[in-house]
Amino acid sequence: MSARHEERLARVALSRLAEPGDPKITGLVSRMGAVSLHQHLLEERELDGALSDVATRLEGLDPQRDLDWAERRRIRFVVPGDEEWPRQLDDLARTGDWQGCGGAPLGLWVRGPVRLDEIEHSVAIVGSREPTTYGTDVAADLAAHVAEQGVPVVSGAAFGIDYAAHRGALVGEGLTVAVLACGVDRVYPQAHAALLGHIAEHGAIVSELPPGAAPMRMRFLSRNRIIAALARGTVVVEAAARSGALSTARWSDRLSRRLMAVPGPVTSAPSEGTHHLIRSGAAALVTRGEEVMEQVAEAGQHAVADPRGKVRSRDRLPAADAQVLEAVPVAQPAQADSISRTAGINLVGVQGALLRLSRDGFVVQTPRGGWVLGPAGLRD
Amino acid sequence: MSARHEERLARVALSRLAEPGDPKITGLVSRMGAVSLHQHLLEERELDGALSDVATRLEGLDPQRDLDWAERRRIRFVVPGDEEWPRQLDDLARTGDWQGCGGAPLGLWVRGPVRLDEIEHSVAIVGSREPTTYGTDVAADLAAHVAEQGVPVVSGAAFGIDYAAHRGALVGEGLTVAVLACGVDRVYPQAHAALLGHIAEHGAIVSELPPGAAPMRMRFLSRNRIIAALARGTVVVEAAARSGALSTARWSDRLSRRLMAVPGPVTSAPSEGTHHLIRSGAAALVTRGEEVMEQVAEAGQHAVADPRGKVRSRDRLPAADAQVLEAVPVAQPAQADSISRTAGINLVGVQGALLRLSRDGFVVQTPRGGWVLGPAGLRD
Repeated sequence: MSARHEERLARVALSRLAEPGDPKITGLVSRMGAVSLHQHLLEERELDGALSDVATRLEGLDPQRDLDWAERRRIRFVVPGDEEWPRQLDDLARTGDWQGCGGAPLGLWVRGPVRLDEIEHSVAIVGSREPTTYGTDVAADLAAHVAEQGVPVVSGAAFGIDYAAHRGALVGEGLTVAVLACGVDRVYPQAHAALLGHIAEHGAIVSELPPGAAPMRMRFLSRNRIIAALARGTVVVEAAARSGALSTARWSDRLSRRLMAVPGPVTSAPSEGTHHLIRSGAAALVTRGEEVMEQVAEAGQHAVADPRGKVRSRDRLPAADAQVLEAVPVAQPAQADSISRTAGINLVGVQGALLRLSRDGFVVQTPRGGWVLGPAGLRD
Repeated sequence: MSARHEERLARVALSRLAEPGDPKITGLVSRMGAVSLHQHLLEERELDGALSDVATRLEGLDPQRDLDWAERRRIRFVVPGDEEWPRQLDDLARTGDWQGCGGAPLGLWVRGPVRLDEIEHSVAIVGSREPTTYGTDVAADLAAHVAEQGVPVVSGAAFGIDYAAHRGALVGEGLTVAVLACGVDRVYPQAHAALLGHIAEHGAIVSELPPGAAPMRMRFLSRNRIIAALARGTVVVEAAARSGALSTARWSDRLSRRLMAVPGPVTSAPSEGTHHLIRSGAAALVTRGEEVMEQVAEAGQHAVADPRGKVRSRDRLPAADAQVLEAVPVAQPAQADSISRTAGINLVGVQGALLRLSRDGFVVQTPRGGWVLGPAGLRD
């Protein structure tokens, strides 16, 4: 068995053992590695002569069977080191825990065609489960605008603002990603069966929890940190004083992502949370999709520290990539062959350059396959 | 004729000659004094042998008759050096001009029982002339809350938010001050005759323009700087993109007063201006009267420079004043005789102390004559 596969199996087993975001487990994995930790926990029984509870549970698991079962259902388990691994999640390893939850996930179970390494310029749109019509309208409008610009919309598939955000992204014919607090094979909430089915076909359904896992209150809190970490910025549309959306906001802030909030009537309870975020200086006030785009573009520009070295200056690009970048339009998407003609570089060369440029955020591919400038490309 | 009276007459004459806030005139008065400037302009004809236009106009004036006429109508002309002069207006002499307007006013024509030296802890509430019902409701609520706390409400008596602000202050049984862009004897807008009559009876109607002067577009801009300068903070409730209320906001900002703005639905055009003020960081977002009170209390606390030495620490107070201050309640107003009993100081001593304490913002007198702690007294 390859080391990579061993790693994957250890992570499957550990993710069945521990609650998502358990800071003890994520901390140990980060320090000693998943395989060592797994081994160590299995051998625990030898340490005290009797089979420990943890070892018993680990013994009863069959991670390979889990992976096979998932594969038959077109569910994949993405772990650090995989090409698809969304490296922005590694930021979670550096932000500590909050309310007993923290750390990078052991892996993400994914259903759907969108690759997670392609959504680092995404925007999360979250909010109240009991919004006003105003709130759902604004959330859907913002999502549609953002999605039209080729920026994926991340949310939690919950009632209210989440639903409006996913729906808006689909209206904008863009990508949308739902991060669940239960297994990706489960339909929760049940009323969103059609939406979830659609996202599984055209976007991605993501969870830190293994297939079959049930939604639980604490799992929503750990799920919120994944939403905040996946996206470059989070927009809170409506959130009452103790709304779960405020935990996503808090994670976004901890992760130095761009936090945004939509104002509303001061007489409306669901706007109290967003007004508080703005008043306290935690969130920028946004009223339109253009302002959201501006904020996430800036977020790249002003990122305090970018561990992935993604914020690269345009003039440090290889000459051919810079030439291709010059040929990518600002707004109206162009296909690779058209860019090839404009740049005077052959198609294979252009495709390679576009791939590199998109990893660094200089260009973004739209759902229809065209290319436009990305947040990094729109700068200066 | 006394020097003070000569000064007053010169200022009456100059205010009839120049447009309010003409930076040339306000600057010259500030440098050479009103009497000298008046004399200089009168003598101008001798400089070039012919009667100059300015001198002709000055010659035709009779400031004493103006004052007599005004006095018969219970209109007074308050100038710097008068006990009633609101010294916060002197800040205007230090902020330069904007759009051809600036400087401290030559004097203020006043109608009504409220003394202008007693409104330095006031709050201005301004906004669109074409607000939504939401906007007028919020403006009236904020004004009522602020007025109930014994803080006067300043506005411009215009249609819309201004009207709601004055009305709210009256509902809150508090003081309200209307600053007009025409003579204080004029009723503008005509539809607000009842409101203006009421304010003239119970509050104060104020103008930089002499009685009889007509409202003109440019006069609204100079009037806005007086509103911003009189108040400790300005709240903009609704303001479309090019609203005049934004000029008041701009003056408030220039004067380092506390600028506040009320959010609204992002779909509402009259909220665009306030959202812009918040997003740009110029204004603090406020949703309730308590937040406005907090902001203006802080404004005193954090005032970068207070030219009037008003922000005095409590422990530098004379012993007797400190003792009286200890006996003034935080919220429920107490009459001077009750404070006298609590403090163990005779009534005359208490009244003198309260007067001094109110000048420094430690205490505030409510419309019914009771005393409560003011912004400075609420600090510790």
